[in-house]
Amino acid sequence: MIKITLPDGSVRSFDKDVTPCEVAVDISEGFARNVISAKFNDSVVETTTPLTTDGSLTLYTWRDDAGKKAFWHSSAHVLAQALEELYPNVKLWVGPAIDNGFYYDVDLGDGVISEKDFKTIENKMIEIARGKHEFKMREVSKADALFYYEGKNEYKVDLIENLEDGTISFCDHSSFTDLCRGGHIPNTSIIKAVKILSVAGAYYKGDENEKQLTRVYGISFPKQKELTEYLHLLEEAKKRDHRKLGKELELFTFSQKVGQGLPLWLPKGAALRERLENFLKAAQKKAGYEMVVSPHIGQKELYVTSGHYAKYGEDSFQPIKTPKEDEEFLLKPMNCPHHCEIYNAKPYSYKELPKRFAEFGTVYRYEQSGELHGLTRVRGFTQDDAHIFCTPDQLDTEFKEVIDLVLYVFGSLGFENFTAQVSLRDPENPDKYIGDDALWQKAEEAILNAAKDKELDYVVETGEAAFYGPKLDFMVKDALGRQWQLGTIQVDYTLPERFDLTYKGSDNELHRPVMIHRAPFGSMERFVAILLEHTGGNFPLWLMPEQAIIISISEKYEKYAEKVLNLLENDEIRALADNRNETVGKKIREAEMQKFPFMIIVGEQEAQDETITVREHGGEDLGTISVMDFVKIIKERVNKSLKTFK
Amino acid sequence: MIKITLPDGSVRSFDKDVTPCEVAVDISEGFARNVISAKFNDSVVETTTPLTTDGSLTLYTWRDDAGKKAFWHSSAHVLAQALEELYPNVKLWVGPAIDNGFYYDVDLGDGVISEKDFKTIENKMIEIARGKHEFKMREVSKADALFYYEGKNEYKVDLIENLEDGTISFCDHSSFTDLCRGGHIPNTSIIKAVKILSVAGAYYKGDENEKQLTRVYGISFPKQKELTEYLHLLEEAKKRDHRKLGKELELFTFSQKVGQGLPLWLPKGAALRERLENFLKAAQKKAGYEMVVSPHIGQKELYVTSGHYAKYGEDSFQPIKTPKEDEEFLLKPMNCPHHCEIYNAKPYSYKELPKRFAEFGTVYRYEQSGELHGLTRVRGFTQDDAHIFCTPDQLDTEFKEVIDLVLYVFGSLGFENFTAQVSLRDPENPDKYIGDDALWQKAEEAILNAAKDKELDYVVETGEAAFYGPKLDFMVKDALGRQWQLGTIQVDYTLPERFDLTYKGSDNELHRPVMIHRAPFGSMERFVAILLEHTGGNFPLWLMPEQAIIISISEKYEKYAEKVLNLLENDEIRALADNRNETVGKKIREAEMQKFPFMIIVGEQEAQDETITVREHGGEDLGTISVMDFVKIIKERVNKSLKTFK
Repeated sequence: MIKITLPDGSVRSFDKDVTPCEVAVDISEGFARNVISAKFNDSVVETTTPLTTDGSLTLYTWRDDAGKKAFWHSSAHVLAQALEELYPNVKLWVGPAIDNGFYYDVDLGDGVISEKDFKTIENKMIEIARGKHEFKMREVSKADALFYYEGKNEYKVDLIENLEDGTISFCDHSSFTDLCRGGHIPNTSIIKAVKILSVAGAYYKGDENEKQLTRVYGISFPKQKELTEYLHLLEEAKKRDHRKLGKELELFTFSQKVGQGLPLWLPKGAALRERLENFLKAAQKKAGYEMVVSPHIGQKELYVTSGHYAKYGEDSFQPIKTPKEDEEFLLKPMNCPHHCEIYNAKPYSYKELPKRFAEFGTVYRYEQSGELHGLTRVRGFTQDDAHIFCTPDQLDTEFKEVIDLVLYVFGSLGFENFTAQVSLRDPENPDKYIGDDALWQKAEEAILNAAKDKELDYVVETGEAAFYGPKLDFMVKDALGRQWQLGTIQVDYTLPERFDLTYKGSDNELHRPVMIHRAPFGSMERFVAILLEHTGGNFPLWLMPEQAIIISISEKYEKYAEKVLNLLENDEIRALADNRNETVGKKIREAEMQKFPFMIIVGEQEAQDETITVREHGGEDLGTISVMDFVKIIKERVNKSLKTFK
Repeated sequence: MIKITLPDGSVRSFDKDVTPCEVAVDISEGFARNVISAKFNDSVVETTTPLTTDGSLTLYTWRDDAGKKAFWHSSAHVLAQALEELYPNVKLWVGPAIDNGFYYDVDLGDGVISEKDFKTIENKMIEIARGKHEFKMREVSKADALFYYEGKNEYKVDLIENLEDGTISFCDHSSFTDLCRGGHIPNTSIIKAVKILSVAGAYYKGDENEKQLTRVYGISFPKQKELTEYLHLLEEAKKRDHRKLGKELELFTFSQKVGQGLPLWLPKGAALRERLENFLKAAQKKAGYEMVVSPHIGQKELYVTSGHYAKYGEDSFQPIKTPKEDEEFLLKPMNCPHHCEIYNAKPYSYKELPKRFAEFGTVYRYEQSGELHGLTRVRGFTQDDAHIFCTPDQLDTEFKEVIDLVLYVFGSLGFENFTAQVSLRDPENPDKYIGDDALWQKAEEAILNAAKDKELDYVVETGEAAFYGPKLDFMVKDALGRQWQLGTIQVDYTLPERFDLTYKGSDNELHRPVMIHRAPFGSMERFVAILLEHTGGNFPLWLMPEQAIIISISEKYEKYAEKVLNLLENDEIRALADNRNETVGKKIREAEMQKFPFMIIVGEQEAQDETITVREHGGEDLGTISVMDFVKIIKERVNKSLKTFK
């Protein structure tokens, strides 16, 4: 008999050689039907692997990331088999599961796969899947493994030669065999829906001097409905791609001359960004933050002091030399060292703390050009950064107030759906962390209390804290259900130490303040990108660069349009008048494309009656009303879209 | 007979060998009494030099910079003579006139000059001056010049050895002789007042490996009253030194760790700066500008295209390399290349012009550490930059509107006293300039028209235009009468060419837009420095980071103080409550030092009657009044201090 411990802590006894599948059945037949992969004592095992010792077992279903991984890993095997059957000369290299699906890198010889072949591959995969083939792992010697592939597949031979000596595992299903580390679903029949998404060139070993192979991307699901939903999501995501919307809405651009990954904010984008900044500034002011301004470079020495140089120096933008002096500067990768020096500009008493220094600070971090992506992966971005310097006793309150601020920001921007992750120390590796043990404990308690107190939907990850302190990260789900990491709140004991920050306590002695790093948006670039994909460009009304566009039916009504514009501007409604000598149809089409929340049409009747005809974007006609009535409507809507803070 | 042309174009005939002094007498006896130096055909001459050919003569008085230069250069001779008489072992090196006075670098042997010796030197100088010694130039051979100094003064020997062969000039006055290029006042007696200002160490040849000499700084005037006024100004300037005020008012700081010349804006300074930015933003919005945001770096190629790299590359911050790619970036020294690329992001029709892109863009330019000075000479600064892209026909109107904006800015900030300089092409060197001749003429006319139309007090400097276009610079006088260069408006034909900027004209053909660069403040750093020195920290009320401070008499009235604060904040009055547990005396003293425009005292009586007692900074007591009455007063004053724009 062996003892199996389940994730809930319960322990069950089984005969030796019980399989995870059998354990699942023991738990519940219904549950067992959904189990698709397993982990035993931190190792991935097959659901059919006999367990021979006591240990902890985790069983995964499709809902778990590990379940999806096994599903897609197994699907890659099926893809490989399908390719072998359809392209007899194919040579397989590697085929992993990825975040959304799987791929296989193959040498097609003189074969080619194009979009028109996708359906054939999908059909072949489904045909194989229906065979209900079990995935069976077996161990082979390195020599046997080499013998199996020699003369047939130089890629696998190279892979095997580079493995450590000892036994190697193969996986068989149906007539197909692959070199494999394991972690499969019970059998192929669970794979009910398959889609080949794309093919791309991929260099063997990722090395551009090596041969170019073909990478075949696919995704698979246990239900046809899930595939349909996923494909719909993909379509939606394409429409909401922030790079596409950013261009259409004239928000930002990139220039090859200025450089990759360095966004240029066009007028409408800069206005949007400024509105976001002003929104946060106003809340921060209420919350007792003070704005500061610091330069975008600092002496190399500054980042040696902060530890950033040791950590990132070599992989980042290289030091800036000066023509006549020995000084070397670095583009700032973070604002914190500068804020520490601002703190250091004068002595503080405990009575003056907390100090909360905020800055929309643009930082520069080198990313390889292949990693760059629109506004989400850039080389220069503006953090909505702030650093709170407080006494250890104030940490609790400060942390809660930062959470309030973050929740206010998310709420006002329509992110209703978010989760939090609390990252704590690994208690078994105290040496990994710096700072006094009692302070750590206090900080971790402060974060946990705050998360509970604010009723956050949070998970605790032990061992995920930064070496300098515990933290709380926010993940939001966008309108398409995609998860994005946004705001972060981090406690830091290191920088106050490294920059020798002090305050005079009530005991008249000098003490170290605690530092909180926080950024509700994360970065303006990334946040605007996510907001674009979340809203599809239909921003909350309070945020829209222009809340309304006034379209004059012809040049005759230009004057009246200007009058309406002035009336709206007097009431701080942001509007534009489109008095171009174009057809009304063209003006309306363009206004719709640019997603103005309200379209105001003025022609003869309106000019005569001093009214406006209002049409809401993607919504109802508000009919012909007075400007004042329109102002009332728009103000009510703005107030509704903004949450209240303090 | 020779013909002498005077600056007004008039021509007078004189006997050969007439001296500038005699010409002055011929013009007017009164004028002649004031003439202290002269220029003949672009060369400095003595007022006693016989003129032997036809030519142009300019006569200078104390009011002219050239007159002051001759005065202070002559005073340096007198200082040298005084030092030789007082310190027999002294060896002279060089002694030029500078912007405010003169200095002489001397080797005192084992002698020392300290502050207590200044009076003795001044007395000796006045004693010499009273001798009414004429300055007499004479030519000597290089050999004779060397013979004169050999064995006595190795510094002068070295100077002479490094001069070109040929004749060398000496200047004699009284018993004193110096190696000299000329340009003196008629005689020493005009020097009526002398002040030795300081002594400092100065390396021989400016080389720190050479011997350290003593630099004696002095200033002199034709009237005692002028010296007194100057010394008073110096005292005032010291009090208003923006570095001193910046520290006292907690506006900005520098950190050795962050780096020299890289200001860190403290909360109050950042708030002040933001207020200035918002003030200009609001005006710019009215004037049809659109804000953009661009990164602080750009590919080296960008600045090669713009021409900045060829011009400044080697003397500036060096290129930033990346770890894995060939790209090189530069810290941006100017925003214009980025704005050109923003313009290039989409095609424009003439109907859409002008486009006016504005950005508070932080730029970085290397300055040697010895050149750095507070906020006026820094290595990173934020320009209140904008670039207007317009058709040649729009230039006239655009230029006038920029002048309106600049005048509004100066007026609202209390700079009532300013002059302008229009810089035009040198018509004799057309090759120095790029761009079509007709366009240049149009642009120059536009600027001159605008300057006339706006009734500016301006001078025209021919040949002072930039190679890319004519310009208009503004010089303001501060409260101490010191002149500062502030805003600039420049027309540019080069960048549109270099960046291939176009718009589609009414003829459906592509044309080049004209570009205007403009910055009313110049830079935020420099402007705040000048504003500090101009106002001594008593900023216009609308600009003050805090317009009032509420001082509670004791902790008992803290709540009432907070209530008053809330009432003020509701009315957008910026105020602070000082509820620290300090004595009222200390709080008031600190509030005065920090120059809060209004101090509000609240104690028992005020809390009971719901009133406040108001004292104006450096002004009258407003007595005990209601909060609402105070709000009315402060709002009236704010409106009065802000000029109207559009």
